[in-house]
Amino acid sequence: MKDSLDKILEEVRGREVPTSERYGQVLGLAERIRRRVEEEALNRGVFVEASVEGSVAKDTWLGSEVDIDIFMLIPEEVEKEKIFSVYMDVARESVREYGWIERYAEHPYVEAVVDGGIKINIVPCYKVKPPNWKTATDRTPYHTQYIKTHLKEEQKNEVRILKRFMKGIKVYGADIKTGGFSGYLTELLIIRYGNFIETLKSVSKWRIGETIDIENHYGGEIGEIKKLFTEPLILIDPADKNRNVAAAVRLEKLNIFRVASKLFLKKPSLKFFYPPKIKPPNPENMEKLLDERPSNLLFLKLGRVEAVPDVLWGQIYKTSKAIKNLLEKNDFKVLRVSAWSDEKENSVLVFELENLKLENIKKHYGPPVSSSEEENFVGKYLGSQRTVSGPYVEDGRWVVLIKRKYLDAKRLLEEKLGRGKFGRDFGVAGRVSEALRRGFNIFVDGEIIPFYRENVSFASFLAEFLRGKPSWLE
Amino acid sequence: MKDSLDKILEEVRGREVPTSERYGQVLGLAERIRRRVEEEALNRGVFVEASVEGSVAKDTWLGSEVDIDIFMLIPEEVEKEKIFSVYMDVARESVREYGWIERYAEHPYVEAVVDGGIKINIVPCYKVKPPNWKTATDRTPYHTQYIKTHLKEEQKNEVRILKRFMKGIKVYGADIKTGGFSGYLTELLIIRYGNFIETLKSVSKWRIGETIDIENHYGGEIGEIKKLFTEPLILIDPADKNRNVAAAVRLEKLNIFRVASKLFLKKPSLKFFYPPKIKPPNPENMEKLLDERPSNLLFLKLGRVEAVPDVLWGQIYKTSKAIKNLLEKNDFKVLRVSAWSDEKENSVLVFELENLKLENIKKHYGPPVSSSEEENFVGKYLGSQRTVSGPYVEDGRWVVLIKRKYLDAKRLLEEKLGRGKFGRDFGVAGRVSEALRRGFNIFVDGEIIPFYRENVSFASFLAEFLRGKPSWLE
Repeated sequence: MKDSLDKILEEVRGREVPTSERYGQVLGLAERIRRRVEEEALNRGVFVEASVEGSVAKDTWLGSEVDIDIFMLIPEEVEKEKIFSVYMDVARESVREYGWIERYAEHPYVEAVVDGGIKINIVPCYKVKPPNWKTATDRTPYHTQYIKTHLKEEQKNEVRILKRFMKGIKVYGADIKTGGFSGYLTELLIIRYGNFIETLKSVSKWRIGETIDIENHYGGEIGEIKKLFTEPLILIDPADKNRNVAAAVRLEKLNIFRVASKLFLKKPSLKFFYPPKIKPPNPENMEKLLDERPSNLLFLKLGRVEAVPDVLWGQIYKTSKAIKNLLEKNDFKVLRVSAWSDEKENSVLVFELENLKLENIKKHYGPPVSSSEEENFVGKYLGSQRTVSGPYVEDGRWVVLIKRKYLDAKRLLEEKLGRGKFGRDFGVAGRVSEALRRGFNIFVDGEIIPFYRENVSFASFLAEFLRGKPSWLE
Repeated sequence: MKDSLDKILEEVRGREVPTSERYGQVLGLAERIRRRVEEEALNRGVFVEASVEGSVAKDTWLGSEVDIDIFMLIPEEVEKEKIFSVYMDVARESVREYGWIERYAEHPYVEAVVDGGIKINIVPCYKVKPPNWKTATDRTPYHTQYIKTHLKEEQKNEVRILKRFMKGIKVYGADIKTGGFSGYLTELLIIRYGNFIETLKSVSKWRIGETIDIENHYGGEIGEIKKLFTEPLILIDPADKNRNVAAAVRLEKLNIFRVASKLFLKKPSLKFFYPPKIKPPNPENMEKLLDERPSNLLFLKLGRVEAVPDVLWGQIYKTSKAIKNLLEKNDFKVLRVSAWSDEKENSVLVFELENLKLENIKKHYGPPVSSSEEENFVGKYLGSQRTVSGPYVEDGRWVVLIKRKYLDAKRLLEEKLGRGKFGRDFGVAGRVSEALRRGFNIFVDGEIIPFYRENVSFASFLAEFLRGKPSWLE
């Protein structure tokens, strides 16, 4: 087993530690763009100090997936509006020969993808002294500095292995869609625990609410920390005692990280790092799979949602939850919920239900006997067309068997998502609601096949969803 | 409204206060049987003091439904076995010319019905001084004595009205089937509250756990009483401070009494006293009703259960609950449960379900992530034929979508009620299980019609069950 673990880690290192040729290519490109940014700024009559940050600066980048972060350090006195106009223009102009898109987290930035899959992010931030942060990205240069001075040479590849592991189990990334671990957080874990294997050993023993304070900002006063932070994982930023580096980590992803760490240590496998791609079945086979599946899948297909990815995913998650609640309130049993989006033209929310249709009867609980609402309830249902049996008294409460308002989950959604309010009355997020207004489709089971046929990314998503189990679980 | 209330009570009095002719008939019959008991005892060489007890002795009997209780006061030194042999023989012999059946509560007695519907109960008890009770019925003579000396002349008809009210709303009777109010309890309520209307006013304000101590045995120490008694209604026996006269009153019946009292006071109606009989639909119409009803009815029909009525009903209730739990554990939604029995050859347990069939998928929750059972669970379901999707992690727990064991409620019951164990493994009561061993039927909806056709009592029961609401509710 030891042998095989070593072999696996060696394999990961082989794939992820960049060759000297790759170093030359990436560092050269980074420096070129950095200069270009400074020049473009001067062209526009503003002064900017551009700086390579992120994994390239810290030498923790993955050979297989490169992100180059160029930060524009903007003097404190510049107004925020100017960032959106002049400085974002500088950013766009600096990568004009590549395709770029504008993104933002709390803060705008420009992303471009160079031939060969290297991603370049150009991010404006204020050049401030801690703790006078003006925007969320102002801390980044200090993070870079901290890692550069605290991460040992031999730990850099341990970070690479850990990042690859997190990517493999789909918990890497502090974006809203992922809700996982940032690069900085990954590096801090290696600093804290020493190396990849020790990190996994510790993580597999983590509890919910695990609290890490590397620089001992709170002098061991966990109680103090818990008063300030309530997230499931807390790692105090060495560069800012008021910030939880793990704030973006959702409970779900923390749990997956814990479980995967434990299971990897028990039975190491390359699958944790490089999950085998599921080849989606061809449309005819998928249709058969959906038909034979004892559950029903309900797909809500939206067109373009006008929002950058972080906002889009926040809205998708909020909407999924609202629709799940709506279905459950109407007694449909929701087994699972998921969502897919190309972050451009198409998004699909998926609800797996035990069944699509209900019998036209339900038990409706009223007020306790002898309560003040008793008479209203009894009066209302005694004469009601909806009443099937009762009202009667059971376990101290009034109860009545009534006909349902909605028997069919598809019709429920069609009505509640359309009809003037487009879901705003039960929690559908604003931008999604606007997209609903422009039109939507609800597909049941095999009705999704035409879309499945034309969209490979969605097809992969659906195949994985049906399988259900994490790809590293075997 | 006042007028109408007076008229209603006058009507009840008219029907329930016996005429002098009726008095002569009933008191004469009671005295005749009382003497017969004493003579029959002497014939068998034992001495018994026979005494008229109950409502006839207390002059609180209903003209429309007469129960004559004759108690055999047996000397303390007689062994219990002898009661079952000699004294019960005496009882049977005393009413040999009428049809009789043997019954028991905690204690055997003989019941006979005389032409004209007068019921005679011959009950053995020990003649003991309080508090040296040897059997549950030994207190009765003291109860009779207490009522005779404490119930005022003008309160006797108030008792009659209250009894009739309780019968009308089906809460009268301390037997297991009813789980309601005994005659003695009814009389004590009138002593406590003065008259019928004041009783209803108080009852409609009762809380669960209402505690009444007429003779102030506990000096107002409610806390002391609550330590001794936990029933939903507590009325300390004036004749025995260690006994709750209302111990038999089930929460359900207490609630019905509270609600009916409140609603009667709001809107008095003769229906509370004399609920209109529901005429059961003819079998063809009933079949149509069952077909059209959106729910499904599942009937478990048993043959003879070898048990006296109190035991029979205790066993039926226990079995109903066990079967309800079994159905719910298998994810069937049970809307209502009820039961009918002729207390002789046939009993039917009824389960109203939202639907009879389930889709072949369910969400099965496993252990929390990182718990010691984690590996077993994951291992078990990774390779299982039953697994549809997963296992995966959700809200900190392992979850898997699996195929069900039972898709059909009828088949579930057929298997679980037959097959060697006859329900003993999941809580079916012993005598019912024995009856199951001798054979049973499970009918769904219209399949019950042949039995419905041949059994008017069951037909009335089913018609009322479908209606669901209490007959006094309008």
